[in-house]
Amino acid sequence: MLLRDPVHGLVTFAGREGELIEALLRTRELQRLRRVRQLGLASLVYPGAEHSRFAHALGAAYIMTRLLDHVQTTQGDMPVDVRIDPEARLEAVAAALLHDAGHGPFSHLFEEAMPSARHHEDWTADILRDDTTEVHAALEAHAAGMAERVAGMLAGHHRLAYLPRTVSSVFDVDRADYLLRDSHATGVRYGLFDLDWLIGSLRFAEHRGGWVLAIEGRKGLPPIESFFMARYAMYQQVYHHKAVRAAEALVRAIFLRFGELVRAGDEVPGAPVGLVAAAASAPLSLGEYLALDDPALHVALDAFTGARDPVLARLASAFRARRLPKSVPLPEDDEASWAIAHARAEALALEAGLDPALHVRLDVATDAAYEEPTDDSSDGLFVVRKHRPLARLGDVSFLLHKLRNQRFRRPRLVFDAELAPRILPILDEVLS
Amino acid sequence: MLLRDPVHGLVTFAGREGELIEALLRTRELQRLRRVRQLGLASLVYPGAEHSRFAHALGAAYIMTRLLDHVQTTQGDMPVDVRIDPEARLEAVAAALLHDAGHGPFSHLFEEAMPSARHHEDWTADILRDDTTEVHAALEAHAAGMAERVAGMLAGHHRLAYLPRTVSSVFDVDRADYLLRDSHATGVRYGLFDLDWLIGSLRFAEHRGGWVLAIEGRKGLPPIESFFMARYAMYQQVYHHKAVRAAEALVRAIFLRFGELVRAGDEVPGAPVGLVAAAASAPLSLGEYLALDDPALHVALDAFTGARDPVLARLASAFRARRLPKSVPLPEDDEASWAIAHARAEALALEAGLDPALHVRLDVATDAAYEEPTDDSSDGLFVVRKHRPLARLGDVSFLLHKLRNQRFRRPRLVFDAELAPRILPILDEVLS
Amino acid sequence: MLLRDPVHGLVTFAGREGELIEALLRTRELQRLRRVRQLGLASLVYPGAEHSRFAHALGAAYIMTRLLDHVQTTQGDMPVDVRIDPEARLEAVAAALLHDAGHGPFSHLFEEAMPSARHHEDWTADILRDDTTEVHAALEAHAAGMAERVAGMLAGHHRLAYLPRTVSSVFDVDRADYLLRDSHATGVRYGLFDLDWLIGSLRFAEHRGGWVLAIEGRKGLPPIESFFMARYAMYQQVYHHKAVRAAEALVRAIFLRFGELVRAGDEVPGAPVGLVAAAASAPLSLGEYLALDDPALHVALDAFTGARDPVLARLASAFRARRLPKSVPLPEDDEASWAIAHARAEALALEAGLDPALHVRLDVATDAAYEEPTDDSSDGLFVVRKHRPLARLGDVSFLLHKLRNQRFRRPRLVFDAELAPRILPILDEVLS
Amino acid sequence: MLLRDPVHGLVTFAGREGELIEALLRTRELQRLRRVRQLGLASLVYPGAEHSRFAHALGAAYIMTRLLDHVQTTQGDMPVDVRIDPEARLEAVAAALLHDAGHGPFSHLFEEAMPSARHHEDWTADILRDDTTEVHAALEAHAAGMAERVAGMLAGHHRLAYLPRTVSSVFDVDRADYLLRDSHATGVRYGLFDLDWLIGSLRFAEHRGGWVLAIEGRKGLPPIESFFMARYAMYQQVYHHKAVRAAEALVRAIFLRFGELVRAGDEVPGAPVGLVAAAASAPLSLGEYLALDDPALHVALDAFTGARDPVLARLASAFRARRLPKSVPLPEDDEASWAIAHARAEALALEAGLDPALHVRLDVATDAAYEEPTDDSSDGLFVVRKHRPLARLGDVSFLLHKLRNQRFRRPRLVFDAELAPRILPILDEVLS
Repeated sequence: MLLRDPVHGLVTFAGREGELIEALLRTRELQRLRRVRQLGLASLVYPGAEHSRFAHALGAAYIMTRLLDHVQTTQGDMPVDVRIDPEARLEAVAAALLHDAGHGPFSHLFEEAMPSARHHEDWTADILRDDTTEVHAALEAHAAGMAERVAGMLAGHHRLAYLPRTVSSVFDVDRADYLLRDSHATGVRYGLFDLDWLIGSLRFAEHRGGWVLAIEGRKGLPPIESFFMARYAMYQQVYHHKAVRAAEALVRAIFLRFGELVRAGDEVPGAPVGLVAAAASAPLSLGEYLALDDPALHVALDAFTGARDPVLARLASAFRARRLPKSVPLPEDDEASWAIAHARAEALALEAGLDPALHVRLDVATDAAYEEPTDDSSDGLFVVRKHRPLARLGDVSFLLHKLRNQRFRRPRLVFDAELAPRILPILDEVLS
Repeated sequence: MLLRDPVHGLVTFAGREGELIEALLRTRELQRLRRVRQLGLASLVYPGAEHSRFAHALGAAYIMTRLLDHVQTTQGDMPVDVRIDPEARLEAVAAALLHDAGHGPFSHLFEEAMPSARHHEDWTADILRDDTTEVHAALEAHAAGMAERVAGMLAGHHRLAYLPRTVSSVFDVDRADYLLRDSHATGVRYGLFDLDWLIGSLRFAEHRGGWVLAIEGRKGLPPIESFFMARYAMYQQVYHHKAVRAAEALVRAIFLRFGELVRAGDEVPGAPVGLVAAAASAPLSLGEYLALDDPALHVALDAFTGARDPVLARLASAFRARRLPKSVPLPEDDEASWAIAHARAEALALEAGLDPALHVRLDVATDAAYEEPTDDSSDGLFVVRKHRPLARLGDVSFLLHKLRNQRFRRPRLVFDAELAPRILPILDEVLS
Repeated sequence: MLLRDPVHGLVTFAGREGELIEALLRTRELQRLRRVRQLGLASLVYPGAEHSRFAHALGAAYIMTRLLDHVQTTQGDMPVDVRIDPEARLEAVAAALLHDAGHGPFSHLFEEAMPSARHHEDWTADILRDDTTEVHAALEAHAAGMAERVAGMLAGHHRLAYLPRTVSSVFDVDRADYLLRDSHATGVRYGLFDLDWLIGSLRFAEHRGGWVLAIEGRKGLPPIESFFMARYAMYQQVYHHKAVRAAEALVRAIFLRFGELVRAGDEVPGAPVGLVAAAASAPLSLGEYLALDDPALHVALDAFTGARDPVLARLASAFRARRLPKSVPLPEDDEASWAIAHARAEALALEAGLDPALHVRLDVATDAAYEEPTDDSSDGLFVVRKHRPLARLGDVSFLLHKLRNQRFRRPRLVFDAELAPRILPILDEVLS
Repeated sequence: MLLRDPVHGLVTFAGREGELIEALLRTRELQRLRRVRQLGLASLVYPGAEHSRFAHALGAAYIMTRLLDHVQTTQGDMPVDVRIDPEARLEAVAAALLHDAGHGPFSHLFEEAMPSARHHEDWTADILRDDTTEVHAALEAHAAGMAERVAGMLAGHHRLAYLPRTVSSVFDVDRADYLLRDSHATGVRYGLFDLDWLIGSLRFAEHRGGWVLAIEGRKGLPPIESFFMARYAMYQQVYHHKAVRAAEALVRAIFLRFGELVRAGDEVPGAPVGLVAAAASAPLSLGEYLALDDPALHVALDAFTGARDPVLARLASAFRARRLPKSVPLPEDDEASWAIAHARAEALALEAGLDPALHVRLDVATDAAYEEPTDDSSDGLFVVRKHRPLARLGDVSFLLHKLRNQRFRRPRLVFDAELAPRILPILDEVLS
């Protein structure tokens, strides 16, 4: 199988790997990912950010094959039973391809906004285990029990204990692909790092009686540091972008209002079955869930612009015309001022006849630049050096040592644009 | 106005231009272009080709500003009344931004497949002229009569006769942006050419009593040749790609079948109003037309998979699972063999119980590498050289001289994959 | 062996191949290529064009390994004795690395300007065969007779008759690397083409009882067409650039004048031994020849600025201060005008007291966009297609068919800048 | 003036700026920079790193014009006398172009290795002030006193006190260009950052009664953070690369040995006058200094391979054949082990009959990721934010706060490769 990818160039999957990937790509469940944008609402800010989770899934699987190609050349000294064998390899590649299969529309927003919504990881596990799905059938046709083993790997379990970390850890094929892909699509070059060199610096090392994938110190430090700096920069510039967060606040408000109406027994024409069920906290079948993709939500939002409820209609119309809420940064180190600003803005919304819960939001984006366990677990990244014992990356890297487990925050007050003439002067007063 | 574009980098629109563009971007009609993919079905072949006409419209407008920035520095010797003045400039930028506003979903497929469908250019004109649209209002708010003048420019008419060619001609801002953008998104680098250098080589020249934009010979030949080679390569590699054409044949068949059902009076649940009207050749309101975007069609295609009509259901299911028809190249220079192959394949489809009109297609993609008038019109590109009179590009360029008005063709037989075991052996026989 | 290349990214040579390459890179003769710029004088026009033949040699060797990696996967159906075996592979890689080992300084200028100078290909053969060179020793240490076999391959002979064409033909690893590398260094993106895709489309085919490397028709046409278009564009834009040619004319004049002085028995201090010998048409030892690199010429040119001969001093000073001759394009299709312009300019030079042979030059750069034999030889490129016999590329490609064996010319009159006030008005008269 | 640069694309200098730049480029002193490689010996490790200081000088001047273009649009509110006027602008552009005019060959090595050598900044000042240079003449022809004003700016003084910092500070046009250019040439993409966005975020701010160029907080943090991360990564990966440092140690040893010979009164044929003078700590004329360029040193090193002194001959031969010393990393946090390792290695060199001062080196590369004053000076970078007072960048940026004034070190033991069999086992013992 041969295809051209804007990030990785010529992408090939050969042999049994190629057959498995082709079989999985032919499934309804993976084809659905073509209709779920990777970055949710970010294209409202970065016009190029229109790529789907489908392209990302392929990219992650491709990186996995390259990572395995390399590390398999370095396992010569390991006992045979802990080496990567052909079946383990196929399971890892399948896990990379399928890791987002259960993702909902509009990035993480759907699962955050819906009361008692399941996480997309749970839906992914269902897709793998439910014997009515085409993905399940494709895996089992390949090898009996494979669906369960891939599901296990995505949950962190595998007979080769180090292998699940290639799909999910601080450095994994998921992050590796999305940083490069989101950079390419947005045009924000901060997300670039040297994938070739980074993969080439991976090797196995023993840690507390088991094996971990570690970084070869001399070659690997610059690319792994760049990887984390790329990730940090993409958070600053894209994922936590103020207008992206504002758009998310708007869609969250739409979901909230829709939920209130549904639970109040109002009928809202144009809503997909799955959305109604989710809003009512009713159980959702896998089929109903998978019918929720970006087009389904776009058609629903279009219908909502004509809803009887004026609040919902107003919010949906704002979204369709890209009238985003205002967003004002708050002082990062002064939490007291956040509360004051928030309370004042809520009061002003009430005065203006707008429900504060829908139209004012204290939005605190947060993340850590580099996370590392402080205990003796085998999680996290390790570094192999000559003349020195195996060490945690954060104990070796000058840069990551300074940043280890340090969280950054981006507090903002987000509010309906109509409230700006009331709220902005108050903010000037509160924040100065 | 400042934004980041993956193709052009930092994009800025300043002053009145910035205000106009912002006003137009806030319209429902332009926001709709976010939901119409630039390359229609090509993402089924190139996973990265998921960019929308919205990003392209912005890119075309940006190229227009850069082109005008340059050529305005070269008009010093021209009579004042034929120079580009601020109003003409704004009209050109607006025309570039709006040139695709009326585009239907799924690239050109919609208008090709629907009986008596209007061309998207006509819908664009309606969006500009209809006084109920937000685009019309935004233009008229800027300057009275502007909507009509921009519509005129898109139809090729303007008081500055040379200006409409910047929006629509063999080299224009539309083509300039889409070649670069489609290259970026697909990862096919063939569509790259040197836009900066090409714009920098443009200047005004007199031709038959009027003015034309011409290329400065020494500097401009390499980039304009590369532009046409880039275009040729993108046709070979992307626009006429065999699997893209196969996907288009499948969707065309779905539209055809849907039309048969509608005209036979069958109800097909899940179809948008506009699609039903188009299928019935009934008049479509502008609102109904604009409601047709990619999400609307995706939701409809999903509904069609459950249609009562088994032919429509089967075709729609094939599309949703990306089961594309087979495509076999035919000898380019042997038209007789095309007809024989086509007829044999149609007969085999009938034997298999499949309607040949829906399941077998003789598909001949065609285009010219470089088109140039052979009369004395002012259309086409001209070259300015020292010591020589103004000449047509095709008379100056070694490369384009050889290619001028030469058409290439890509004949293929496209047929339902289920027919492959019957048709392939016959083709081996017919074509060998 | 692992290194980072700006064109190919991470470059690795493994196993015996790695050992051989490392051994060859450690030789004096290959290290010398670090001091010979790939593009000679082009950096006077493109400031970035400062890369050496050393980097190019590595790049060509790397492309060879990738090309061989691919075609070795496609030779399963061939008789064992015509397949690429490990020794043939090593010979091809060595040939790619060494193809330019005998190159003189200042690109092709040195061998063109010196009377009875040998071609650099002959010096390369000497480096391989002379048993005093480190290159010879390194090859023979690897396998007895290897030096001769590699020299044979560079001369077009090998027991696998198709193999020498990978080093030297219309498409070879030399051209493939230099187009990409010169593009990267100059910033002229016209030289880009899709190397990955092109290599991936190569396969073996039978032709007149032997084997040739051919292009798989469906996949390979776009990249091979782009390759030739890239090459054409680089000739237009860089290799035949008017200021590059003017700089070459200046250096040629310096060499000519230096030769006149040497042959007249004048001593010119600061000239390297090899340069004096070459000017006197005396035999040059390999050591003397190899001592001629860019630094040796730069130091000599610096010394020439203080030469007793005022003509040489003036020319050398012009070079050091980058005062290039003027260059005026002549009508491509009017050879008569060339002769007239040339004669008039020579007369004016004489009037001004400048030797026309040194200060006026009719410079006609010429090349063919695509060359292809018209007889039944196995040279040239072939295309494999389903349902059709093996055919020459020029008979299959729409584009290359039009361009086959068509030469383009770039006639210019190049003359000392001081003569411009006299010559330019005359040219206006002659050429209008 | 129009040229194509691989880093900045199409580069133009217009109007009086273009005239000044063209005049300066025509000088002998700037043309000399074509023969001084930007990265010294790094091309021995990164084959692409062959670019000269000439291309860098042009790039720095171009960035200066773009930086000034932007900040001049933001000075509307400033008193007229502190705004950038046309003359100040020309002085800044000239300073950017000329900042490295006095640079010696082989990067910083020359001035580090020669006893009592002057810094290249002093030679640059001489080039500007000495009225026999063409640079001086070109500047004075432009405006009387300009040479002095540009020299002052390069020394940090100007009537617009903030302006010299655009040429020399933690973020300046020099660093901005070389990070991008060195990245491009080496292929190490870590040096990339978003120059457009960074320039676009600059604005003037008042600080302690004067004016500084500051960063607009919301937009500017991501690109300025990326700039410093790019710089840090380039130090890790290129400037402090272990083999680059080893090559530098070798050349330093050659210079040292050459100096010993010169001071002992030995004649070393082939050495340029300037090199002899420098070795003897004799005064060097500007002309003698400028005659020292890369070709002069290469020719000298070639001559040294035949020196009578076997130590010099051996070192020079090692350089010509790229036989670099060995380099072994030492524990960063254990200075005691450095001294032990160094002493043991020196003793072993003595045993082997090699002078430790020439053949063993304790090499500690060091730099700070982000430097910032801790007093109230106007040096360093400031950030402008709404609702907050002007603050130092390190007080605003999460990332740079952690890194402020933290130095990293790269200690290594570098020794002659012949000593490796003796030294390596000892190091294993000492360091384990």
